[in-house]
Amino acid sequence: MKPLFRLCTALAVLLSTFHLSAVAQEGVTHSGRPTGQPPYPLTDYRELPNPVTPDPALWHEVGGVRVGWGSTDVRYAKERPAEGLSQKTLTLTAWRGERVSAQAVVSTPRDLRGVRFRVGELTSPKGGRITADHIFTGFVRYVMTDELNKDGRGGCGYRPDNSLFDSTLVADPIDHLTLSLAMDAQTSQACWIRVWVPSGMAAGRYTGTVRVEDADGLLGELPLAVEVLDRELPQPRDWKFHLDLWQNPYAVARYHRVEPWSEEHIAALRPYMELYRDAGGKSVTASIMHKPWNGQTHDYFESMVTWVKRVDGTWYFDYAIFDKWVEMMFSLGIDKQINCYSMVPWKLTYRYFDQATNSMRDFSSAPGEELYDKVWGEMLTSFAEHLKQKGWFEKTLISMDERPEEVMQRTLHIIRKADPGFKISLAGVLHESLADELDDYCVSLNMKFKKEEIEKRRAEGRVTTFYTSCTEPRPNTFTFCPPAECEWMGWYAARERLDGYLRWALNSWVLEPLLDSRFHTWAAGDTYLIYPGGRTSVRFERLMEGAQAWEKVRILREEYTRKGNKSALKRLEKVLSAFDETTLVERSAAEVIRVARREVNRR
Amino acid sequence: MKPLFRLCTALAVLLSTFHLSAVAQEGVTHSGRPTGQPPYPLTDYRELPNPVTPDPALWHEVGGVRVGWGSTDVRYAKERPAEGLSQKTLTLTAWRGERVSAQAVVSTPRDLRGVRFRVGELTSPKGGRITADHIFTGFVRYVMTDELNKDGRGGCGYRPDNSLFDSTLVADPIDHLTLSLAMDAQTSQACWIRVWVPSGMAAGRYTGTVRVEDADGLLGELPLAVEVLDRELPQPRDWKFHLDLWQNPYAVARYHRVEPWSEEHIAALRPYMELYRDAGGKSVTASIMHKPWNGQTHDYFESMVTWVKRVDGTWYFDYAIFDKWVEMMFSLGIDKQINCYSMVPWKLTYRYFDQATNSMRDFSSAPGEELYDKVWGEMLTSFAEHLKQKGWFEKTLISMDERPEEVMQRTLHIIRKADPGFKISLAGVLHESLADELDDYCVSLNMKFKKEEIEKRRAEGRVTTFYTSCTEPRPNTFTFCPPAECEWMGWYAARERLDGYLRWALNSWVLEPLLDSRFHTWAAGDTYLIYPGGRTSVRFERLMEGAQAWEKVRILREEYTRKGNKSALKRLEKVLSAFDETTLVERSAAEVIRVARREVNRR
Repeated sequence: MKPLFRLCTALAVLLSTFHLSAVAQEGVTHSGRPTGQPPYPLTDYRELPNPVTPDPALWHEVGGVRVGWGSTDVRYAKERPAEGLSQKTLTLTAWRGERVSAQAVVSTPRDLRGVRFRVGELTSPKGGRITADHIFTGFVRYVMTDELNKDGRGGCGYRPDNSLFDSTLVADPIDHLTLSLAMDAQTSQACWIRVWVPSGMAAGRYTGTVRVEDADGLLGELPLAVEVLDRELPQPRDWKFHLDLWQNPYAVARYHRVEPWSEEHIAALRPYMELYRDAGGKSVTASIMHKPWNGQTHDYFESMVTWVKRVDGTWYFDYAIFDKWVEMMFSLGIDKQINCYSMVPWKLTYRYFDQATNSMRDFSSAPGEELYDKVWGEMLTSFAEHLKQKGWFEKTLISMDERPEEVMQRTLHIIRKADPGFKISLAGVLHESLADELDDYCVSLNMKFKKEEIEKRRAEGRVTTFYTSCTEPRPNTFTFCPPAECEWMGWYAARERLDGYLRWALNSWVLEPLLDSRFHTWAAGDTYLIYPGGRTSVRFERLMEGAQAWEKVRILREEYTRKGNKSALKRLEKVLSAFDETTLVERSAAEVIRVARREVNRR
Repeated sequence: MKPLFRLCTALAVLLSTFHLSAVAQEGVTHSGRPTGQPPYPLTDYRELPNPVTPDPALWHEVGGVRVGWGSTDVRYAKERPAEGLSQKTLTLTAWRGERVSAQAVVSTPRDLRGVRFRVGELTSPKGGRITADHIFTGFVRYVMTDELNKDGRGGCGYRPDNSLFDSTLVADPIDHLTLSLAMDAQTSQACWIRVWVPSGMAAGRYTGTVRVEDADGLLGELPLAVEVLDRELPQPRDWKFHLDLWQNPYAVARYHRVEPWSEEHIAALRPYMELYRDAGGKSVTASIMHKPWNGQTHDYFESMVTWVKRVDGTWYFDYAIFDKWVEMMFSLGIDKQINCYSMVPWKLTYRYFDQATNSMRDFSSAPGEELYDKVWGEMLTSFAEHLKQKGWFEKTLISMDERPEEVMQRTLHIIRKADPGFKISLAGVLHESLADELDDYCVSLNMKFKKEEIEKRRAEGRVTTFYTSCTEPRPNTFTFCPPAECEWMGWYAARERLDGYLRWALNSWVLEPLLDSRFHTWAAGDTYLIYPGGRTSVRFERLMEGAQAWEKVRILREEYTRKGNKSALKRLEKVLSAFDETTLVERSAAEVIRVARREVNRR
């Protein structure tokens, strides 16, 4: 049978290749540039050509293939030889249950085929083992990015013409699906290595080796050590850090070419939502009306609540999609709360299925107007009833973002009228008059809650967080930002005693997010942190590490307070005080984090 | 109070005029020609300018204002003096319960203001009275028409450029809403007078006078007599003539500017459907899917059944609109049957509300394909259940029109599978193999059922009818056709022993149906028989008279057969034998009808 089997396989490969080239159109990036490959790659893909040519002078100095440990603070440029690599043992310090990461880098003056990084298990002298299934590796691939606005003041605004911005490849997506990679001469390639120390681990030093190979054999060996401290970080779902990254299931449906809310869609969503869960994601983003943000993302948010105006003029609301989404998220363990957008969308227009005309229709009305108050009143009454039936009422928040205070007061009135028990959230400006009304209040980085107010809210079971958006030049999470700025968010929240961090886009992908992170508004990468194929990123990993830092600070504060260890508390607060966004021009996030990490990792 | 009241009225008129001119845009006809008035007039309106100029020579002979009886067979030209008018007593012969009609005409060489026709009650020497509420009058207004195709072979085909056809004003809409009319010099104007003889009336001669006046006084008096025979015509709802004129409620919603299926829409529909009922209309036209005829009319038929694909993939069908429509029609007495279009629409595409994507979607599938058979199977099963709940199952027909036999056989299979009891109708080609399957079978004029086959079907409770469409040059019901051809349909059905007549369009109005009956396909008037404002027409009145003729023939045949009066039967069949469409070039419909009327109106 064997020859026949082989022949069939070869034929199948041939046919599938033919099929692919015959039917698949070529993809294009958001700006209309052909990608040279079928659209929406999930597994193998080719990066866009590098707009920057390698400098021969720099590569002239590089004798052979360079292999070594780099820094997770650095995005190694594709066209440059990596500087400052070390071949010495890299020692990472971790709590039990913590994830720690490293970057190993290859810079090659010549073409390489089949480059791969192999990490074996880490062992301790006492026979302890961190097995390979706790060690994650992925190539740090290159994606097209741009830069801040020309005046250096953030990344907001319309960018219809990408050529006005400096476009470069930047190391961000972490590709765990590609097992080996060909490297062109005069390029660098990093590998992200993350060790998730098991909870039950004995403290001590665990050592192992990273083997860097190409098709012809070994390129280098890098010794790795993880120093496990006798401290325990809880599992992400038990973290108290409140991470709220808005999920866009519609982008996943489009990229995976599946029908929204089909079983295929649910299956495609899971890996992305697991990334969010493992980073400590707490909120489920639910769109309860059509286009809450007026379709500002490439894939707009459709309503998860079905709005129907019956021919007799009555309204009917169906929650089948909402339920499917929430149940899927809850089943993954993302079950703290559901944030529902939005009663006050950016465009006060509401789409519904109109039975009489058998068509989709919109009505426009503002809070305080009769039509608005009537329809939303009915919707909220029906919604409250449904949520109570599902046992979700206590976890659900009617969510608003960035609206004038007067509008919000009117909206609150309607919500309270429909059900006084509804919880409410706001991501927007700090209005002291609203603080007692909002169960989840998120203000931008530059607005400062009083610490006593935050503590009071926490004691009442209310959540207080901050967000960054396109506004901040630094810290931020654009694809070109220094990776440490993502981690900085958690440290800053710890310093301010805030409960957590919010960013408006976990995965509101652009057209070809693996290839080009630029969009027609905002600086590149503003709209997503994770990549197709369930790929994480340098940004997302460091953001998660910030969440870990916040948890560690919380645990240490509790312990020091409990034990009355005032000097330790003082030391801790001192390093935290460096997390002040106004100093980020002079002192890099990486620098202040290095100091702070040392403090929370004291034995 | 009086002066104040007057002032207010004047102001109100001023304001309403201002309001009208300020907000109302000018209407345009289907071909984009401005109508010189607000769109969609319901009460007063101005006809389009006459493309034909009066011939001064003809008018020179007309001394003063000419007033007299005309013929209901003639469409009097607006720009010509009416010929052959009579001032003598016009005697109409009627059965009890019958409607009989006349035209009085004014031709004026000079401008006239406030022209009106007043008909008093008709009285008999024995003191019997036909009171004024049984006498209907209306101006026969002028509407733009075109003509047959240039080769004289019917009126089918696309007519994007109206200028290729001779466009003239033609007398057709009967305007009972305008009480008096100004007439320009050198124009003619007819008035339609219809007497509906009450059922209980004593036989005998009833006489009265039609006074023709203008603002300055009497223009003429015309003596009118109705000779009531001692025979009874039943009320229209008891007629056995099966009249099926497809109703388009969507055209009424658009013209009246009301939301489809609102109470305002239902109220607007009633007068039109009463016209249909009073002409003996038997079938309710129901569209059970989106665009059964691929939107061929100016106002396409939307689905009266709401098709919903739920997010879990199951189908849901809602009948609220269907029920509202059927209940309204049944409440008017149009309750013999419901014809449901269409499982095999002209474009095999089906629109539904897709919950998953919150949008309207279409699927395309043909009978015999898995998707088609599955979805229609579910729809029909649900529909049958609903119809049985409503007690309508026995009256409902799944209706098809003009499809290949093989497709219909496949479709029948699906219907039978969903519910073997479903009744089925077809308007299309005569397939002998289908005759036993079809409860309502309508074939085009040129196809001839065997008389025995029709009798057999009738004995089984099945209906057999014929239709005309754009195909026939004569007889037909275009706005330019000789009025008698509309009546001819009933006589022909009587001759062929058919149960009735079908035309595909009662009121699929063009953009401005009162002004311009031309459309971008087919000869003018093909798409409607009645006019906005609940206005009847010369065509519609004569069509109704054909239905009366059919009923009268049916009654006489029954009586003669019962009484064994063979010579009378022979005489009757002899006059009926003249209703052969192939002779209509030589002998006008008016001529053969004149003879036939005499026969059925023998004392």
